[in-house]
Amino acid sequence: MLKALLFDVFGTCVDWRTSVAGEAAALGLPGEAVADAWRARYQPQLETVRSGEREALDDVLAELGLDLALEQRDELTLAWHRLDPWPDTVNGLARLKARFVIAPCSNGHIAQSVNLARHAGLPWDAILGAEIARAYKPDPRVYEASVAALGLLPDEAMMVAAHGGDLEAAAACGLRTAFVPRSREHPGAESEAEADVSAPDFEALAQAL
Amino acid sequence: MLKALLFDVFGTCVDWRTSVAGEAAALGLPGEAVADAWRARYQPQLETVRSGEREALDDVLAELGLDLALEQRDELTLAWHRLDPWPDTVNGLARLKARFVIAPCSNGHIAQSVNLARHAGLPWDAILGAEIARAYKPDPRVYEASVAALGLLPDEAMMVAAHGGDLEAAAACGLRTAFVPRSREHPGAESEAEADVSAPDFEALAQAL
Repeated sequence: MLKALLFDVFGTCVDWRTSVAGEAAALGLPGEAVADAWRARYQPQLETVRSGEREALDDVLAELGLDLALEQRDELTLAWHRLDPWPDTVNGLARLKARFVIAPCSNGHIAQSVNLARHAGLPWDAILGAEIARAYKPDPRVYEASVAALGLLPDEAMMVAAHGGDLEAAAACGLRTAFVPRSREHPGAESEAEADVSAPDFEALAQAL
Repeated sequence: MLKALLFDVFGTCVDWRTSVAGEAAALGLPGEAVADAWRARYQPQLETVRSGEREALDDVLAELGLDLALEQRDELTLAWHRLDPWPDTVNGLARLKARFVIAPCSNGHIAQSVNLARHAGLPWDAILGAEIARAYKPDPRVYEASVAALGLLPDEAMMVAAHGGDLEAAAACGLRTAFVPRSREHPGAESEAEADVSAPDFEALAQAL
């Protein structure tokens, strides 16, 4: 019996590109170019997540030949902690939470996931994912540790993501899978993927389960 | 600046004795005697939390010379996952959450903390404590790992508990402390303890901070 839903966050629950591009543009930068180049460099590192984001921004600005005051760089780095949800995310999660345990299974760290949840109103039951597993998706240990933390068997949990690779890795660990396409995530976003369930958004997913 | 509050759960947020005694009494057992003897044996073990609770119940029943069908033993074991909050807990936490990150820092495991939160309506931002630290309170690693998971320094966090020993251990790690007495937790509950703040309940704590 399905008891818990685990969610990818970046792209699946929150619209990182519009949010980061908007904050960059407000500082006079070419928003989407900065957002895309930054995301491409996003390499989570367990001990240095905050300095890692900031260093990646320095690299992006250098690469794109842009300048920004140090104080504004620090401020812009926090954009990754206040990403806006997709329009269906919060209502969909609330409906799903009434029947299932819901938690992020993300490569973001606990501090960042908490900040995102408070900003976007994501009503998680717990914060799972990379930090508790001490590994990063698609490493199977991330899915396995997240399921184990809930005291569940893999097939009692379902991974929900907008990215086929994430679902494939979860399925290999025995989790069920749900694909929710986020065509506006970025140019070239996946419109289909192998999954047990596919739904156009989280409200439709609540309906389908 | 204070940014997060960490809470002891058993006794501080939930009234384990009344809850467990009530379920035991409903099965024809001497409720408070079973609750007290069971709690005294509660030794969390990271890998075997559920079987541990069940085995402790078997020991308690043998010690008290009581009998109970196996199915009812399994059912009663789950009483520890559906403990009721104190009357001020939920409203107090909601008020505190508006201004601070709130999380349990308990020796309970993530699965149990999630079940308790869903049963009692505890609106945690994350589930911290023993399982993420891989140690048990009062081991300093539990407080340190919980603070670090939020990306905070120790003095940006405050431990809230009804037990002086918990607060003393947290203070030794550099956390601020709040004492909330729960005189009805069990006979002999502490009525005072050394702490930066003392408040009669969570609503008063929200007022005080």
